[in-house]
Amino acid sequence: MPYGYNGKILRVNLNNGSTMVEDIDETFYRTYMGGSGLISYYLLRELKPRIDALSADNILIFAPGVLTGTLLAGMCRFIVGAKSPLTGAFGQAEAGGWWGPELKRAGFDAIIVEGRAAAPVYIYIKDGEAEIRDASHLWGKKTGEVQDIIRQESNDERTRVVQIGLAGENLVRYACIVNELKHFNGRNGLGAVMGSKNLKAIAVRGNMEIPVKDEDSIKAVRNRFAGLLNTHPLVKQLYSLGTSATVMGNNALGILPTRNFKMGEFEGASKISGETMVDTILEKREGCFACPVRCKRAVKVEEYGVETRYGGPEYETLASFGPLCMVDDLKIIAKANQLCNQYTLDTISTGATIAFAMECFEEGIITKEDTDGIELRFGNGQAVLQMIEKIARREGIGNILAEGSERAAKLIGKGSERFLVTVKGQELAMHDPRGKYAVGLGYAVSERGADHMISTHDTMLASHGISFDTIAPFGIYEPTDPREFSALKVKTFTYLEYWWSFFNMAGICDFVPVPRSAMPASDVIETLRAVTGWDTSLWEVLKAGERAINMARMFDIREGFTAEDDKLPERVHEPIENGLIKGGYISKEEFEKAKRLYYSMMGWDEKGVPTEVKLLELGLDWLN
Amino acid sequence: MPYGYNGKILRVNLNNGSTMVEDIDETFYRTYMGGSGLISYYLLRELKPRIDALSADNILIFAPGVLTGTLLAGMCRFIVGAKSPLTGAFGQAEAGGWWGPELKRAGFDAIIVEGRAAAPVYIYIKDGEAEIRDASHLWGKKTGEVQDIIRQESNDERTRVVQIGLAGENLVRYACIVNELKHFNGRNGLGAVMGSKNLKAIAVRGNMEIPVKDEDSIKAVRNRFAGLLNTHPLVKQLYSLGTSATVMGNNALGILPTRNFKMGEFEGASKISGETMVDTILEKREGCFACPVRCKRAVKVEEYGVETRYGGPEYETLASFGPLCMVDDLKIIAKANQLCNQYTLDTISTGATIAFAMECFEEGIITKEDTDGIELRFGNGQAVLQMIEKIARREGIGNILAEGSERAAKLIGKGSERFLVTVKGQELAMHDPRGKYAVGLGYAVSERGADHMISTHDTMLASHGISFDTIAPFGIYEPTDPREFSALKVKTFTYLEYWWSFFNMAGICDFVPVPRSAMPASDVIETLRAVTGWDTSLWEVLKAGERAINMARMFDIREGFTAEDDKLPERVHEPIENGLIKGGYISKEEFEKAKRLYYSMMGWDEKGVPTEVKLLELGLDWLN
Repeated sequence: MPYGYNGKILRVNLNNGSTMVEDIDETFYRTYMGGSGLISYYLLRELKPRIDALSADNILIFAPGVLTGTLLAGMCRFIVGAKSPLTGAFGQAEAGGWWGPELKRAGFDAIIVEGRAAAPVYIYIKDGEAEIRDASHLWGKKTGEVQDIIRQESNDERTRVVQIGLAGENLVRYACIVNELKHFNGRNGLGAVMGSKNLKAIAVRGNMEIPVKDEDSIKAVRNRFAGLLNTHPLVKQLYSLGTSATVMGNNALGILPTRNFKMGEFEGASKISGETMVDTILEKREGCFACPVRCKRAVKVEEYGVETRYGGPEYETLASFGPLCMVDDLKIIAKANQLCNQYTLDTISTGATIAFAMECFEEGIITKEDTDGIELRFGNGQAVLQMIEKIARREGIGNILAEGSERAAKLIGKGSERFLVTVKGQELAMHDPRGKYAVGLGYAVSERGADHMISTHDTMLASHGISFDTIAPFGIYEPTDPREFSALKVKTFTYLEYWWSFFNMAGICDFVPVPRSAMPASDVIETLRAVTGWDTSLWEVLKAGERAINMARMFDIREGFTAEDDKLPERVHEPIENGLIKGGYISKEEFEKAKRLYYSMMGWDEKGVPTEVKLLELGLDWLN
Repeated sequence: MPYGYNGKILRVNLNNGSTMVEDIDETFYRTYMGGSGLISYYLLRELKPRIDALSADNILIFAPGVLTGTLLAGMCRFIVGAKSPLTGAFGQAEAGGWWGPELKRAGFDAIIVEGRAAAPVYIYIKDGEAEIRDASHLWGKKTGEVQDIIRQESNDERTRVVQIGLAGENLVRYACIVNELKHFNGRNGLGAVMGSKNLKAIAVRGNMEIPVKDEDSIKAVRNRFAGLLNTHPLVKQLYSLGTSATVMGNNALGILPTRNFKMGEFEGASKISGETMVDTILEKREGCFACPVRCKRAVKVEEYGVETRYGGPEYETLASFGPLCMVDDLKIIAKANQLCNQYTLDTISTGATIAFAMECFEEGIITKEDTDGIELRFGNGQAVLQMIEKIARREGIGNILAEGSERAAKLIGKGSERFLVTVKGQELAMHDPRGKYAVGLGYAVSERGADHMISTHDTMLASHGISFDTIAPFGIYEPTDPREFSALKVKTFTYLEYWWSFFNMAGICDFVPVPRSAMPASDVIETLRAVTGWDTSLWEVLKAGERAINMARMFDIREGFTAEDDKLPERVHEPIENGLIKGGYISKEEFEKAKRLYYSMMGWDEKGVPTEVKLLELGLDWLN
């Protein structure tokens, strides 16, 4: 019996309703580790190139990481992966909560779902056994109801349910996946893949213990981290304000995406801030499995029927429905958040697609005729709520916007593509790259389109006052200006991308380790050693992280992506219109130079293609 | 006050007899660390390209590492560096003993010697103070006498003396440097650089404490290592037989260099083995500063006047004067060893140059007329002793052989170059690459010519039965066949070269950590953390190791070396004539392929030149 994982993957074939258990050995697990490493391995091995992401040919993988389920802050994540219907590229999205640890305690390190069920089904897993159950009665229902019914059917209030709502069923290309009604595999439209398979939910219950090698060391790490809870500035802030703390910070720095990224400062910021949330609608602070940080919010707004069980808006949601759409009403944003939860819509892409449509409306490219009479102007909060309903149901213009802004611009035409703020078809997250260049580089080169789950050290080191000493173990001893593309910046970005990639493979929340937060790299490594018994190192895990990035890139190359696709939207090359960095923009020339430097540092050729030697080095010669 | 080092470098200008202390800061020390990192930094900064290595323009650097002086097995090394008069390339050689720790306790992290004294001098250093003293009375004397006199003059029996003998004074191009009469900075002819500066010795006495950050952790590492002393096979063997254990092992594997590398098995092996030494001439087992391994030998041979204070022959010496010259008389080898000690001749290059001359003699290219009547045949032990005297004194043919075999072949002519077994002008160490390909790759690509202080994992993992699990923290999970050039072999070689390079920078003896021996990589990292207080990692130290390799390479490129110089001698491309791998040879094509793969894995171009981006990544843009 291995330590820290089960050595077993569950395969579910929805074409014929069969299930199968596949054994994986220690070297496999140490090489690919879980999360995106495991996902990209199976996608590369088993998907034919250029399939339709919403066809039965796609496979959908649910993969916790090697540390998921460890009784330690942040060790709760699992990753869902497939070819993305939004980007057509390598698709993955991670979530916290309890579902990942539960799956591991149910005996599996991952689930691979193949094919497509003839009628709606859900998968029920308990302690090593899996069955496929009818879900016809759940189809069309809101997520809260579905969870209640499945728990009743399993006669167990602690059954953990991961599921899709209406948007997933209706194949909205940015539908997400939710567990426990408040933890989201948000991006890349993986909820639509789940919907395309007629898979409504996966319910899991596990009572099996995952043995760890060295309980005492884990306890020691836990104690050291606990000692930081009341002293580390960012940990304290995550507790008191959650991610919504970022609203006022980004606004002050002029990088709070406002009016579809035209601006960086929002007049109504303080009305929708984390501080205001605490003073008004906040009911509870919540967290994930084994985590004392408790960065999650639960809010209540009686007039809109917003219930605490759907959690509350995070920073990304506050920004995308708030400043990006110029809405300064926190209660409306809370309602938008709950609707997205109930329908499983990614709030970032939903808000950003609506903001795009609003700009089209303001510019006269779409009119009230197109919107069934809705005055789709910036600042119209009610219009936002109406659009969410339309998108989830694919009604009227919602059917166009459900395709994501990039496909919508093609359908709308009339020059609307100049209002797009996307990379590889995915809408930018709520961090304006003009104020933190590394984030821009990350958006552009990400194998999964613009995504905030990237190396955000510019934010951490520069804006949040985190000491750059924490990345000295990476061999980096100096900070860089957030608004420069120096070689040191690109190096820092590259090394920390390996680190972030490893978090994903291991199932670690990036709000816990350095540089974002308080747990030193050495304690992360010590945890991996203590859980698995592996004599490991920062070198080994960064090389593993690098391996997963290269695999995702090889997937994208196979799908036809090139260096041309590693680009930023025009908007961030234009001057930002207000705020602290008013007039600031990213020079195309400097960006291209940084991109080439990144390719070289990755061991890729000038076209962004991993060299044969890099694949050999990483043990990926099976991809050559 | 920093931990683990002084932050001070002593500069001695022999042109004008001045001394100066230079401060270095923590970031510098963390980046370059000492040893070859520090040496290559100063050589690149301060040497004009293509100077004569034996002119006053060369600088000579004595550099312990960041861990030198730690009270832990193997933490005793210091490195001497300069442009090499033997290879014309980056020159460095490391030694154990007590001198390195003593220098640090005398307040200095390194000594840089510039210029040339008008008459012989020695440098005396005590507790932060340095003076230049007359050495006219020491010039020409044997090392034992010199040490006695300097200790008398300093009125302190514990004064540690590093010095040259006659060969250094006479600028023999492979003269070495000795401390305590038995620890050698052996290769690259740095003793000749010392001689060219009229610098006879550096005597050091230090009573200053170097504070360490975390004494308890060092104690814990020490205790863990102590627990392995009686259980780890290689540690036990190093105590019982020393490096001479290798004689019988290599003979059995058919890779004991015999008859100038024509053969790999020596009939007389058992007569000169470590086992025989124990049974006959061994008097004592000795060690270095703070080290319980005690791999050093001290022998006594009354009939030849061999005294224990000169130590005893190591494996390299046994092989170079033994099988390589076909001599099977252990007492003669012990005498040869003592002569080399007294005159400071590198025993590897001395034995190998004599073997080369013997082959020339056997083939009739040189005759008794050239040798002053000496019958310079393979197996003639007395001839070996006579040749050592002639070389040290540059008498007769000794004056030619003192130039090293490659220059000697040019002087001798008549096709003698086909008997050369050298890389970049330096004679191969006593490990036949035909039986361990990684050693061959290491000889060829080494910036300092063929040298055994390279990544010798082929030996360790394959021949010595060391578990490859010990290198799992490097992300390597499988062993390779010693006689293959697979991608995994090249990767293993490359990663472990970084590791070996770091040992050199840190001052760690490679007989202590994995993969050669018992201390796990994590304990090495823990030691560095405990000594310095740096929150460090395997990643950081391997990147530091990589940095030093790149700096040495940039030095060589500046001196005119190209990929053409990264080659193996013809002899190893020819079939070996006897032994276990009889008929075995290294294919030129396979070797070239492996070399190109190594370049690529290093981030170098196909000419073996570090790319601009690699230098940027390593913070070496000052070299672009």
